[in-house]
Amino acid sequence: MTTLVHIDYPFKGPFGPALTEKFKSLAEETSNEPGLLWKIWTENPQQEEAGGVYLFQNESQAQKYLEKYLGKMISNGITEVRARIVKVHSELSDITNAPLSGQTTIQSSQ
Amino acid sequence: MTTLVHIDYPFKGPFGPALTEKFKSLAEETSNEPGLLWKIWTENPQQEEAGGVYLFQNESQAQKYLEKYLGKMISNGITEVRARIVKVHSELSDITNAPLSGQTTIQSSQ
Repeated sequence: MTTLVHIDYPFKGPFGPALTEKFKSLAEETSNEPGLLWKIWTENPQQEEAGGVYLFQNESQAQKYLEKYLGKMISNGITEVRARIVKVHSELSDITNAPLSGQTTIQSSQ
Repeated sequence: MTTLVHIDYPFKGPFGPALTEKFKSLAEETSNEPGLLWKIWTENPQQEEAGGVYLFQNESQAQKYLEKYLGKMISNGITEVRARIVKVHSELSDITNAPLSGQTTIQSSQ
């Protein structure tokens, strides 16, 4: 069952384009995580926070990723991570146009 | 700038297919909210919670929706709503295949 992970943590920056430079290689690595359909990166410069919303194919993959991620954060000295795993209700989500599968590139051939 | 809203609140059910019956017409109404690209409905039966993740075209639309939504919840006696508005970092999100636009049906014409 498709499963969502929310993560937020205190973060003093950089934000915006400088954040891209800082985390570009991490983003490329993240895109290859087992079972990850997508991740939205979030930032909240006014409240000095950053985070993400991840969609995984199933709960087991979400839990495995989160354990690895939290371990990495702790070893980097970041211990104030808020993390939640929630189940996706696919029928209601379909009605509100939710993107519950990976992106597909559709090319028109003539 | 694309903006994400997280909402969670205590909820004793129903979950699963019965939740669809309960909220189907609300979901249809939600899909027409100004500026809403999509909503993912979430449920957490073990912790007795429900919620959602919404993607809006911009922060102003996200704030307007949230004010209306919280007003509706309070008038229904639900006051323990956790709600957060965060900015989307589109460059990093693109690398991790994030769905930052509404779903588009692409038809191939020959």
